This record gives sequence, structure tokens and C-alpha cells, in this order.
Amino acid sequence: MKFVSYQHPELGERAGYLQHDHVLDLALAQGHAQEQGRCLSQRPLPVTMAGILELEGEGLQAARAIAEYTANTQVASLPFALPLERAQLLAPVPRPRSFRDFYAFEEHVKTARGRRGLEMVPEWYDFPVFYFSNHNAFVGTDALVERPAYTKWLDFELEIACVIGKTGRDIKASDAAQHIAGFAILNDWSARDVQREEVKVGLGPAKGKDFATSMGPYLLTLDELEDVRDGDRWNLEMTAKVNGQELSRGNFRTIYFSFADLIARASEGVTLYPGDVIGSGTVGTGCILELGTDVHRWLEPGDLVEMEIERLGVLRNTVKEEGGSGCAILS
Amino acid sequence: MKFVSYQHPELGERAGYLQHDHVLDLALAQGHAQEQGRCLSQRPLPVTMAGILELEGEGLQAARAIAEYTANTQVASLPFALPLERAQLLAPVPRPRSFRDFYAFEEHVKTARGRRGLEMVPEWYDFPVFYFSNHNAFVGTDALVERPAYTKWLDFELEIACVIGKTGRDIKASDAAQHIAGFAILNDWSARDVQREEVKVGLGPAKGKDFATSMGPYLLTLDELEDVRDGDRWNLEMTAKVNGQELSRGNFRTIYFSFADLIARASEGVTLYPGDVIGSGTVGTGCILELGTDVHRWLEPGDLVEMEIERLGVLRNTVKEEGGSGCAILS
Repeated sequence: MKFVSYQHPELGERAGYLQHDHVLDLALAQGHAQEQGRCLSQRPLPVTMAGILELEGEGLQAARAIAEYTANTQVASLPFALPLERAQLLAPVPRPRSFRDFYAFEEHVKTARGRRGLEMVPEWYDFPVFYFSNHNAFVGTDALVERPAYTKWLDFELEIACVIGKTGRDIKASDAAQHIAGFAILNDWSARDVQREEVKVGLGPAKGKDFATSMGPYLLTLDELEDVRDGDRWNLEMTAKVNGQELSRGNFRTIYFSFADLIARASEGVTLYPGDVIGSGTVGTGCILELGTDVHRWLEPGDLVEMEIERLGVLRNTVKEEGGSGCAILS
Repeated sequence: MKFVSYQHPELGERAGYLQHDHVLDLALAQGHAQEQGRCLSQRPLPVTMAGILELEGEGLQAARAIAEYTANTQVASLPFALPLERAQLLAPVPRPRSFRDFYAFEEHVKTARGRRGLEMVPEWYDFPVFYFSNHNAFVGTDALVERPAYTKWLDFELEIACVIGKTGRDIKASDAAQHIAGFAILNDWSARDVQREEVKVGLGPAKGKDFATSMGPYLLTLDELEDVRDGDRWNLEMTAKVNGQELSRGNFRTIYFSFADLIARASEGVTLYPGDVIGSGTVGTGCILELGTDVHRWLEPGDLVEMEIERLGVLRNTVKEEGGSGCAILS
């Protein structure tokens, strides 16, 4: 199932799903089913993805029953169906409950460090490391992403995101799949000049990464990936293009620590909640920092970044100049 | 005004305020005023601090009118007043919208780095640096704090927290005070062994800090600090004791970057929201890492940590052994 969030012209942010190139509104579809005498769930489904995820498994199960109800109908004739090209998609979870981003692809870490003349850190192999980033600055596909006034070195990062669908603490790697609502493409936009300065102080990236994260176009549930699964890894090609030119190509199966490992690590001594987002870290070749500016200059206003992951669709964003007043301290 | 959140025996999490050693429930006090023919606000106040903060200035103003209404009454006779010693306080904002922690006291950075044989980083003076931490793991005063099974080096950090009360982006330092709802004591619990390993990978602390943050006991509004204000700094002594023994003593006025600077930095190119929490970083002498284990061993289950900041009260927490199943990866 492909979950989306979208901006309804009158009703605001809504949860929906994709079927036959249409966005179907979940709560409206449920109401329609009930009018047709088909009671698919005892209680009305929340209208946002955050609300549906908070119901843990029950919300996702109710949504699935609704999608099965509409699967064999003439979607275009349904009053709550919107042609995809007319829908304004948001990030599948527009405001995640939190955002942890890992660093789990070996090639990316080796190459990015190598470019700075640094050896691989032996500790990297001991356990997966993450940092928290800004869960209040997520956008979806087709959103314009502002280049902050304080950076000249804007970069993209090609990643895969996992959205948590079930509360848990000290989750075992072998149980982790039960806690995943689905996967989506993630672009962790980065201001490399700011990041370079701030990490010298030893607190890791924050301001270099906090201005925007793109996720989308939809959230795919794991049942749709069974045929490409190998244990706790999935065989999915990942590419990124800038203005139509392919810069990055990798595969999700090359991840060194699997999402099962990442969820186990993230939940040690801490509760994970539905709506938490966990990023994989950048796949090998998945950013300009790693490729080098001899391959491509830093991003500029007007650049179109398109990320594609097999089965997960295409996440498209165009860079624009920041409209704000600029920078108070770095200038 | 001293805002609190507390756990009402029947009504759950509620917003209140302190008056004459009692917790007064804000929404119940508003209802009482209306019954007495005193209409203090057109609309009913939300029952949680998050809800009140989301109304931006309007919510805080309505709360202030209610506190003025009860100020001259016999508080103990009011049906919605609970003696403080019987109230279960939560963090003043139990689930912040986000949590950024800075590193703004020079003495702490110098000494903590010096202990590891490291020089001061010149970049530290150029701009204030922060990291995002886990806003979903906040607790209030008197809460037991679990020592995670994966750490042997548990530490406290004596800090001051600022809660954002008004939405803003690219906030100028000169306007920052308008965006502050108030200050509270903050204890950024830290697992130093985990932190030491993970920062080697270059992503800054996350797992070393994500298991718990204490904030409280209440949120004090800035109007109550005018007599100790000097520009954008405040003259407030800060101390921390472990099992009654004073280990840390500093003063909030020694902060190198003021909260005005921190808010300006945090909001560059990014929107800050009501309910966001910003930490100052540790005051000089404010943690065992800085003092050295010759002064005090790492914290152990049963240890009582008491932090006091003038005007802001005392934040008390006792360490307990983790009840969970332990650690999946570090073991």
C-alpha cells in the first residue's frame, strides 16, 4: 500500500493512498464505504497520517481494509479520488514525531572521509551511529527547497527513510520489521560549509542540516517488497539526478547495518513512537561531497534534484533562493 | 509567573501555576472565575502547556489574567488548588516540540576538552554550536531517571533551558526576548562512555544523551527576573549537589553566547515554534566529566542529583537501575 499525505483544497492536511494514479482520501473513502453499507472499521479513521499511525497497528489495518474495498472499483468515478497530477503531496508524514539519521552505508563514509584526507574510523564498524535532526522542517515531493542565505555549499543526500508504526523500547533486531510502517525516499539537504565548521566543535552536524529534509513521494508498506527482500535487506536500486544528469547510483542492499540493526540501536533504553522517522544515511555516491565538485558544483537556485528508488517512486525538489532576511551570526 | 505541568489523578496531564505553595489548575481556575462572573478570556484555555503555548502570546496572557485573579484569594480554599507537596509535577512542557542543546559556557568547553588533552577549538568563538537531542524523553522533578543498561559512566549536566513561546524565523538577537516563554533548570543526563565512542565517528552525541532529560520544577517568566537582568544576561547562581554534596557552582551571567545569540543562531533559515526547548549547555564545573572522577565517581543507582538555580527552584532526580532488557548492540 502506498500511503500519502496531501493538502486538500478545503480540508487541509489529509491522509490518503495511491491507487490507479489517483489519490484517495482515507477518511472520505471510509465514509463512502459506510454509506454503501460496508462497515470497514468501528471507529472513524483520523484524517492525518500522524493520527492513523498513533493507532499503531489498528490504524494501518483499517486503512488496508479501505484500500481493498476501493481496489476493484472505477477509481476515477469516486467522489473522493483526485488525479495524482492535481494533488499537492506533502511528506507522507508531514511532521514526524522525531527524526534520527544514521550513517550506515560503508562506501559513503569511506569516500567522504577519504576526500578530507581522513582514514576510516574503526569505531564505525562497532555500532551504527546516528544524530537527531529537525523533524519540524520536512517537505514532500515537488516542494521548493530554499537554499539558506548562509550557505554557498548546498548538497543533497540520497537516503531511504523508515517510518515507525508501532511503539517499542529495547526492540530486538529480529522483531524490528513489526515496528516499521513503511519506507520512503529521503533527501537530507546539507549545507557543507556550515557543517564543516560546526563539526570541528565536536557536536556533530545540526545547523548544517536543519533547514529542510524531503521525504516522499509516498510511504510504501513492506508487504509490497517481499519479492525483493533478502533477509533484512532489500534489493532496490537508488539513483539521484541533478537537472536530468545522473550523479548517484547505489543499491539499498549494500547497507552495512540493516534497518533492523538501526531500530535496535535507536530503541536501546529509549521508546520509539509511531511517526518517528529513521534515515539510513547516504548511499555510496549519493551526494556531491562524496563525488567531488569536479564532478558537479554545489547546488544553486533553479537546480532540480530527482531521486528515484525502485518501487518507492521519484522524489523531486527544486532549489530556490531563500526569501528570508538572511543570517544573523554567520555573516 | 511559575508555570507547571502536573499529573492530575483523574484528568491526566494538566497545565497549572504555582501560588502560595499550591498548584492551581489553569483551566479549572478559568472556569471558577467564570462562575464568579469574571470573564477572563473569551475562549476556554487549553488544558496542557503545549496547547497554551500554541496560542502564542494570547495563551500566556490569558494565563496571567487568571493568576492575577487568584493572587489575592485564600488559595488553600479554592477547589482547584493542590498543595505542592501532593502534586506530581511533570516537566513544565512534558513533551517539547523539539530540543536543541547548545554549548555556550566557555569554562565548561575549555576544561572538558583540557581533560581529554585537547586545545580549545578556535571555531567555538565564531558562532554558538548546538545539537538536536531527544524531545520525547523529558521528565520533571522527582522523577526517577533510569541508568541505561549500556552505560557505566552516567553523568549529569547543569544547564538552563529556555522555552520558546512565539513562532519566529531569522529572529534578530535584539528581538529574541519576545520569543521566550520562560526559563527552567535543565539536567542533560549523559552516558559518557557511549558519547566518547560515538563522537569519534563525527556525528556528535546522540545515543549518549537520548535516554533522559530533566526539566523543571517550573517555568519562570522573564518579568520575574528584571531585577537580576543585565542586558541579555541574568545574574543567577547555579549549583548541583549529588547526595547532598555540592559539586558544581556557576553563574548564568558567565554564559559566553547569550540566549539572544542562541535563538538568533537556531532560527537562521528555520522556523522556531512555541514549545521548542533550547538548552544553554553546561555551566563551568557543571558535570563530573569536567570535574574528574577523582572529585566524584560516575553516578550510580540510588544517587540523588539536586540542581538549584536562583529563582528557578530545585530540580531533584534519583537514579535507578534500568528495568528493561538491556542492550542489543553495545553488549
